[in-house]
Formats: sequence, C-alpha cells, structure tokens
Amino acid sequence: MRLKNVKGAKEKIESSSYLLLNPEEYKGHFHDVFENEHPLHIEIGMGKGNFIIENAKRYPEINFIGIEKFDSVIVRAIDKLQDIDLPNLRLIRMDASHIENVFDHEVDTIYLNFSDPWPKNRHEERRLTSTPFLTRYDSLFRGDYRIKMKTDNRKLFEYSLISFTNYGYELSKLSLNLYEDELIKDNIATEYESKFVSLGKPIYFVEVTKKK
Amino acid sequence: MRLKNVKGAKEKIESSSYLLLNPEEYKGHFHDVFENEHPLHIEIGMGKGNFIIENAKRYPEINFIGIEKFDSVIVRAIDKLQDIDLPNLRLIRMDASHIENVFDHEVDTIYLNFSDPWPKNRHEERRLTSTPFLTRYDSLFRGDYRIKMKTDNRKLFEYSLISFTNYGYELSKLSLNLYEDELIKDNIATEYESKFVSLGKPIYFVEVTKKK
Repeated sequence: MRLKNVKGAKEKIESSSYLLLNPEEYKGHFHDVFENEHPLHIEIGMGKGNFIIENAKRYPEINFIGIEKFDSVIVRAIDKLQDIDLPNLRLIRMDASHIENVFDHEVDTIYLNFSDPWPKNRHEERRLTSTPFLTRYDSLFRGDYRIKMKTDNRKLFEYSLISFTNYGYELSKLSLNLYEDELIKDNIATEYESKFVSLGKPIYFVEVTKKK
Repeated sequence: MRLKNVKGAKEKIESSSYLLLNPEEYKGHFHDVFENEHPLHIEIGMGKGNFIIENAKRYPEINFIGIEKFDSVIVRAIDKLQDIDLPNLRLIRMDASHIENVFDHEVDTIYLNFSDPWPKNRHEERRLTSTPFLTRYDSLFRGDYRIKMKTDNRKLFEYSLISFTNYGYELSKLSLNLYEDELIKDNIATEYESKFVSLGKPIYFVEVTKKK
C-alpha cells in the first residue's frame, strides 16, 4: 500500500518548495533556510503532516521541520500545503538513522508521534527511543535536550520511559491519558491519533529533558 | 471507621512479638533484631499486612519490616500472624515522616503500595513520593537505592514518575497494566489491590533505582 503511486508522488514532492532536497548542505546552519534564529523543532516520522503543519500555523515564532522516509506518506503532507504559505516550515525525506548527518547542535525540541513500536526484541534498535537513537540525538541539540513523545502503544511507552531515564533524561510532563488531562489544551493531534482517540483508547504523552 | 476499637487494638498490638515498640533503639543495627545480615526490605504503609506477610513467607532469606501508623489497621495484620512464626518479619507503628530517625543506611528496598494520593496541591508534601520524602529515604539505604511502587491512582503515579526522575532515580521496571504483564509473575497483592483488580481497573507498577 505504502508504495502505490510512488512515481507520481516522487515528482510532486521534489517540486514542492517545502522539501529540502539536500538537507546535509544546511548542517549546522539551518537558520539560513529560515533566515532567522528562531528555535527549531523537528518531528521524526511526521506521517501525513497534520501535527507539524498545525504547529507551524500556531507558532510562527518557531521553525519546524518534518521528517518522513516514505514518499507515499510525505505526498499527503505536500497536498495539504498546496495553497498554504508557511515560511517557518520545511520537510525532509530521509531515514532517521542518518539524522546526525543533517543537524548539528541546532535543534531545540524533537517530536516523536506514534512511532513504529517495533515490538520484537531483535528490532529494539530500530525504535526511535532506543539507546542508539538517543545517542544520535545528542549532537542535534543546541541547548538543553527536549523530546516530546505521544503514542497509543503501551509497550513502546513503557520501554521509552525506561530508556529515556536510563540515558539520563528526566520526565518533565507526563500523562497516561492525555485526553482526560489539562495537558490536552496545547495538544495538536496527528491523523493517526484522531482515529485512535475516537475508539476511546488512551493516548500516552511524555516530555523528557536533559541538561546540556 | 479507622478509630473503632482502637483501645482493644492497642493492647493486642503491643503484646505481639512482631511489633517493635521502640524502633529507634535499633537504628543502624537492625540486623540485631533478626540476628543475621540478610537484606532488609521495608513497606511504608503496610495496611492490613497481606503484602509484607506473604513476602516474608515467600522469601525467608530477606528480612521484612512493615510500617503502619494506624492501630486499627495494624491490628488486622497482627490477627493474621497469630499462629504463624516468621522470624524474618517485624512491624513498626509510626508515622513515616520520622522514618529517618529509625533506619540508618541499612535498608535495601522500600515498598510503597497504594499510598494515599493526597490529591490536593497543598498536600503534596504528604505524598510518600514527594521530594521531602525522597530526601528522608536517602539516609535509609545501605547500597544502591531501590523503591518499588504500586498504585491504582493515575495522578499519583504520573506525579511519582516525574518526582522520582527529577530526584535522580532511573526507572528500572515499569508496567501501566501489571495484571496484563509478565511482571505479574512475582506480584504479591495487597488487600486493596485484590479488590481493585476485581473491578477490572489497571494497576500501575514501577521499580526505580539510583546508584549510591
């Protein structure tokens, strides 16, 4: 399913002014892309883009970059952006396992929304909250480290809380049922999240921080 | 309700060989009580005692001390112990806010089971996982710090996870639904827990550790 219409998608994506085709070129000076020194927030695995697009609309004083590896998914975000002008938003098509080649001490917040849980133990290193990924993120951050995560997957959430704190992160904000909490006020839902919430299942949320 | 029959309870408790009447006398040398150097695990707020009594039966190579402030509750544990000989178990009647006067670098694990959530903000300092209590616990531990907590109260659990990690604890084990997990194998239920589980509500569990 993910690969259907990839050919058309690829062309559409690459002609979009939102896409940074060679992101490594901006490593260490992404502020040149935005022509300002505003904070930079990135979402790894942005999917169809609702979360990052709505954030970019709501917070013009923050720069946002959405990262996604699948053309067939990124194209849905590009479609949404067709008639919208958001100078504080860019998209990158890449596999996050190379993310340390793209950013260098210039990211303020990382969002991980409904990441693939990779439930098998032998795939642990593919989880975006595993130690190998937390290690990659180290060189991304400009100041204090900050990661905000949402998921409906209990096992991934338990795993991630343990992984974060073993790596030296503190929990700053936490909800085991986001839609019953005050924290929901600031929430922007992903496409997946909206579907899941309508089934009455809890959404887990955590913000973790680590001093530089 | 808690105070009914306190007078009879007081006498019954004080005549029990399980009760340590002047626990401060053993501060720093509780191994004299048990006449061995086995690890010492304590439960703060043991209630009617099922958890600590069943632990003492299951793990004879560990010493256990149950702490409870209410006579009317402790007496229920004493009743259960009437015909049982557990040389590795003692009980203390006290308010936990003075716990640093009783133990001195001799505790290996603290259990906090279904503690009072004290939901109001102005009562935060009474929660057994608040910073004032975590500070008190510091001088209790012999080696690495270890606290195991169970609760059905989501807000208390969220608060506690944040409080633990802000204080430097790492999460070692975690379940957001203990009765659906493998961790349940080692679980010993409290009286309160058994009732709550029968209603189908989740039990939260965490083990936190901190290097000495």
